[in-house]
Amino acid sequence: MIRLSTKFERPDPGLVRQLGEFSAATVHEAQGRLGALDSTIKPVDHRMKLCGPAFTVVCAPRDNLMLQTAIHYARPGDVVVVSGGAYAEAGSFGDVLANACRAKGLGGLVTDTGVRDTEDLRPLGFPVFSRSVCIKGTVKETVGPLCEPVAVGGQTVRSGDVVNADADGAVVVRREDLPEVIAASRRRVDTEEEFIAAYRSGKTVAEICGLMPILAAKGVVIDAE
Amino acid sequence: MIRLSTKFERPDPGLVRQLGEFSAATVHEAQGRLGALDSTIKPVDHRMKLCGPAFTVVCAPRDNLMLQTAIHYARPGDVVVVSGGAYAEAGSFGDVLANACRAKGLGGLVTDTGVRDTEDLRPLGFPVFSRSVCIKGTVKETVGPLCEPVAVGGQTVRSGDVVNADADGAVVVRREDLPEVIAASRRRVDTEEEFIAAYRSGKTVAEICGLMPILAAKGVVIDAE
Amino acid sequence: MIRLSTKFERPDPGLVRQLGEFSAATVHEAQGRLGALDSTIKPVDHRMKLCGPAFTVVCAPRDNLMLQTAIHYARPGDVVVVSGGAYAEAGSFGDVLANACRAKGLGGLVTDTGVRDTEDLRPLGFPVFSRSVCIKGTVKETVGPLCEPVAVGGQTVRSGDVVNADADGAVVVRREDLPEVIAASRRRVDTEEEFIAAYRSGKTVAEICGLMPILAAKGVVIDAE
Amino acid sequence: MIRLSTKFERPDPGLVRQLGEFSAATVHEAQGRLGALDSTIKPVDHRMKLCGPAFTVVCAPRDNLMLQTAIHYARPGDVVVVSGGAYAEAGSFGDVLANACRAKGLGGLVTDTGVRDTEDLRPLGFPVFSRSVCIKGTVKETVGPLCEPVAVGGQTVRSGDVVNADADGAVVVRREDLPEVIAASRRRVDTEEEFIAAYRSGKTVAEICGLMPILAAKGVVIDAE
Amino acid sequence: MIRLSTKFERPDPGLVRQLGEFSAATVHEAQGRLGALDSTIKPVDHRMKLCGPAFTVVCAPRDNLMLQTAIHYARPGDVVVVSGGAYAEAGSFGDVLANACRAKGLGGLVTDTGVRDTEDLRPLGFPVFSRSVCIKGTVKETVGPLCEPVAVGGQTVRSGDVVNADADGAVVVRREDLPEVIAASRRRVDTEEEFIAAYRSGKTVAEICGLMPILAAKGVVIDAE
Amino acid sequence: MIRLSTKFERPDPGLVRQLGEFSAATVHEAQGRLGALDSTIKPVDHRMKLCGPAFTVVCAPRDNLMLQTAIHYARPGDVVVVSGGAYAEAGSFGDVLANACRAKGLGGLVTDTGVRDTEDLRPLGFPVFSRSVCIKGTVKETVGPLCEPVAVGGQTVRSGDVVNADADGAVVVRREDLPEVIAASRRRVDTEEEFIAAYRSGKTVAEICGLMPILAAKGVVIDAE
Repeated sequence: MIRLSTKFERPDPGLVRQLGEFSAATVHEAQGRLGALDSTIKPVDHRMKLCGPAFTVVCAPRDNLMLQTAIHYARPGDVVVVSGGAYAEAGSFGDVLANACRAKGLGGLVTDTGVRDTEDLRPLGFPVFSRSVCIKGTVKETVGPLCEPVAVGGQTVRSGDVVNADADGAVVVRREDLPEVIAASRRRVDTEEEFIAAYRSGKTVAEICGLMPILAAKGVVIDAE
Repeated sequence: MIRLSTKFERPDPGLVRQLGEFSAATVHEAQGRLGALDSTIKPVDHRMKLCGPAFTVVCAPRDNLMLQTAIHYARPGDVVVVSGGAYAEAGSFGDVLANACRAKGLGGLVTDTGVRDTEDLRPLGFPVFSRSVCIKGTVKETVGPLCEPVAVGGQTVRSGDVVNADADGAVVVRREDLPEVIAASRRRVDTEEEFIAAYRSGKTVAEICGLMPILAAKGVVIDAE
Repeated sequence: MIRLSTKFERPDPGLVRQLGEFSAATVHEAQGRLGALDSTIKPVDHRMKLCGPAFTVVCAPRDNLMLQTAIHYARPGDVVVVSGGAYAEAGSFGDVLANACRAKGLGGLVTDTGVRDTEDLRPLGFPVFSRSVCIKGTVKETVGPLCEPVAVGGQTVRSGDVVNADADGAVVVRREDLPEVIAASRRRVDTEEEFIAAYRSGKTVAEICGLMPILAAKGVVIDAE
Repeated sequence: MIRLSTKFERPDPGLVRQLGEFSAATVHEAQGRLGALDSTIKPVDHRMKLCGPAFTVVCAPRDNLMLQTAIHYARPGDVVVVSGGAYAEAGSFGDVLANACRAKGLGGLVTDTGVRDTEDLRPLGFPVFSRSVCIKGTVKETVGPLCEPVAVGGQTVRSGDVVNADADGAVVVRREDLPEVIAASRRRVDTEEEFIAAYRSGKTVAEICGLMPILAAKGVVIDAE
Repeated sequence: MIRLSTKFERPDPGLVRQLGEFSAATVHEAQGRLGALDSTIKPVDHRMKLCGPAFTVVCAPRDNLMLQTAIHYARPGDVVVVSGGAYAEAGSFGDVLANACRAKGLGGLVTDTGVRDTEDLRPLGFPVFSRSVCIKGTVKETVGPLCEPVAVGGQTVRSGDVVNADADGAVVVRREDLPEVIAASRRRVDTEEEFIAAYRSGKTVAEICGLMPILAAKGVVIDAE
Repeated sequence: MIRLSTKFERPDPGLVRQLGEFSAATVHEAQGRLGALDSTIKPVDHRMKLCGPAFTVVCAPRDNLMLQTAIHYARPGDVVVVSGGAYAEAGSFGDVLANACRAKGLGGLVTDTGVRDTEDLRPLGFPVFSRSVCIKGTVKETVGPLCEPVAVGGQTVRSGDVVNADADGAVVVRREDLPEVIAASRRRVDTEEEFIAAYRSGKTVAEICGLMPILAAKGVVIDAE
């Protein structure tokens, strides 16, 4: 007998909503350049975005039995996160399951394997992030871990951690770090807006980034025109 | 002397037209999850689609002598299928040849090497599927097989087999299997539409996919919230 | 002490403008199929184009100290060209620096590493070509060569050489070859337009490409339908 | 302040020793085809083997500050397991650190980045498994997690889990599963030896694997010579 | 019902033996630079060599049901050739099946997926060529084509064609071309031995390869020291 | 007319000999972690080593006309360095040309494309470093740069720069930097030997690497067992 459990602690929905206001790149920087999934995991369409608690599952390559199981048990707002062996040559998710997810109000899908039916997924309004787009179908044979920590895109993701993803890629934030990361993200956005305004007003990179002291400290002398 | 022949049996045009009503993913599933080309072969623009009998040719990497030959001898509706060594770093097809193909009424191009002039190809209305987009030009030196079975994207494609391709990728159907695959595709589309309707009406994955008996048969006990 | 210099000879702006009228593929062909960067380097959006003198810099992977330095010293119209170890898993350039570049009137960025904030880059009007899109941030630690010949995308690029890039990829032209390459590009465009017109008027590939004598010379006999 | 801890529960050394008698492939099968790291992680020399409790660490790509820290705190017999962003283009471990490891009696190194000084590592008697061999050096700048669950080769590895690796690759076994996996490995070895003896005595694949009923159940009829 | 057949015409054993005297590189050149499988397919040990008629089979990725079937039906001397989706992350063949093959007197295995138990395979005397070495096991679920033309390593291989492989890689020769390729291989070996003797006696590359007229014909003038 | 020149300044042979006493990894570190070629370029056999002045050449992919030209004009001790488009699927060098090189007393070959006849190359005593081993032959059609700066393995190599390569990979040293790099290499070797001796005598990583102050400066507090 194989015992699986779908019980895990979810983060405060208000915090998830706040984190969702920031881009994935901002969140990654704000938590000290940690948590970014491999850049090979990208949205089906560059306008897709998601932010929600991870509902993790391990699928064998070319097998989506556990993905279906995850979709069944995930709750509204959850982002199903699939560790599928980083296998590009299978499309383990398509428009039928996307309709199931959308009907349930799930928050999105992040998978290190492939998806298909992308022309149907684009207008559907359910955000899908994957390593590839592939028509090759899957079997439904292999049982695997559910709601346990999984390795996906070079990161460990736990159920209840929050995944934030957009055109640039995906990042995971530990549930317990949410308040701190939100605050740091806000500070970073403020700083970046100031920098952009400064550049637009004619300030130089040297002025904004304090480049000259850094180069001087490294012994660099630049013979400029 | 090297003897080549362009004679092969083409499929019934009515059957080709019927197959073209289905997506590549549907056709792949309908014929028992066979025939899908590697997911690295994708359209220049995600709105491109094609369905037609393959006119096969082998090109040496970075050499398009045989591709020009194939375009010359292919017939209206044919899809030129190039086995070019899966070489990404050459653009062996561009807007000039695309205009030649379009003027002849060819059905499309599928190649495991690269193409170029993509901004001109997008509006032209001639569907092009390739492994890469690359500006690097080709020579015209090497003779290779014409209208023989070729290996492309991990599949054997014979002249007269039918290639169906869209945003998700490409699939090949044996000429003699067309009626059966069309019928199976139709059944699959019907089933999928029923599934989508069921999900929209609130049915669960467990109900639609019969998940619980499968998991039970594998000894899985799920401790759900 | 590490001495760097930003002095190099720039090409005639009129010649740069003329080269910019041609596509990257045309320029590559016109200079004898030389100078094309690897096809993995592509624009953030397929409508982006650039043409300008290279301002070269070497960055350590996951380090953008020298990129900031390059942006500071580059002149209006310059294209900053980064050799960053062909590392896909870092985004060393985003919307803040893009605003700095735009405020300075730089010509664009070509990098063999990644960039981020792509949804902000798309509407900004500053052309960015990279190997990847990645949210992972960089450090500012490592000094490297500035305005020296660099290896990027399999080509040696010197400061003052001209980089031309579009949806199909990027090509570098030696500064001293500009007049010759412009003339050859013009001839090539004229020829291609004639070919396209000929195809549209019903001419065949054999007629346009002189295919039959080539095949005959190689001993090919084709048994056509 | 960043608090790190090196406290974790190690497995029973007798159990580790018993697991070490089996090959990585056997252990992987014995625990239900779970736990195998990506096949890109291989020994520096095909005669190297290791089995020991994981001491996990996350290094930034091209940075080995935390690897040095891990080597300092790991205990005799421990296998240092590095999650370094699957970055092939850095050699973060060489003969100097290997001598440090050997002097301490560590059990080995498993890393998803590169190593160097391989001609010195071969005769040293300290088993090293890596994704690449690369001469490029690292910096010592970035703090990262220590003794926490890490993602390496597509698996989550926890400190105290046991890593078994040989010429074929590496597998991780959860600490709590050791007794069960050892027993299952033993059964598997016995079965395989029986199979090999049976093949040598002239039995067929059909007889040993029960192939015919499987094929018959799937509706296969074979027209054999 | 799925009908498979293992009937195909095998080549003359004397011709196979003669072809086996030549290296894979020589055979590839001798048949006009055709038939070489991708260089990713290599022997488990560089001293392994094979030459024999192909017995072809298609396996689904991570599934070796059809490989077992092929081994059961293949005849002494046959080389089992597996098209397995070019999937590196599965070891679908190990020492147990190798013993089965050896007991039957098969000629070898060539697969575009992985194998395992390589330390046992090395001394066994059964040549194994694969794309990877991987401990991950396979299922036995999916029926696929048997003894039909398959795509492997970018080539179409038919049952009864002859595969010749060594440390440098693998090449396939059409059954009907054997006499011609053997003769051409012999001529090539003779020529190469003459060239090597000439180089050893002090002749230059220009003299042996007739380099100067080739360069002159291309308009090259070399200003040598 | 295409004018090529083989004239360039070679380094002092005594300095080349001294540099050859150090490993590639040592030289790379000694010159400030610069000059390392991509780790994909490796020796045919791990016992091969070379050190000599580069004689650079650019080959079109799958074309070795210029490689033959380079071998003809290179001088004893020179290392022929080939920029061939990083193309793995061609073997542009084999035992015939290796005999030519050996008869001339060349110092070795470094190429970013493939080689073949490796079982003959191993015992020949001519060191060969390549990106791949591949049986696929080349044509002799395309003229390219000779003795100019080339991009190979992500580095710019100039004729007369010195290449040092061994089992771990290859590094290039600017001709003018030789004395400084030799001195720095010597210092590094001395330091490393002291470190190894210290580790063998029981010193810890913290003591040798001064780890504790570094970690403290970064605010790390470690709760060790």
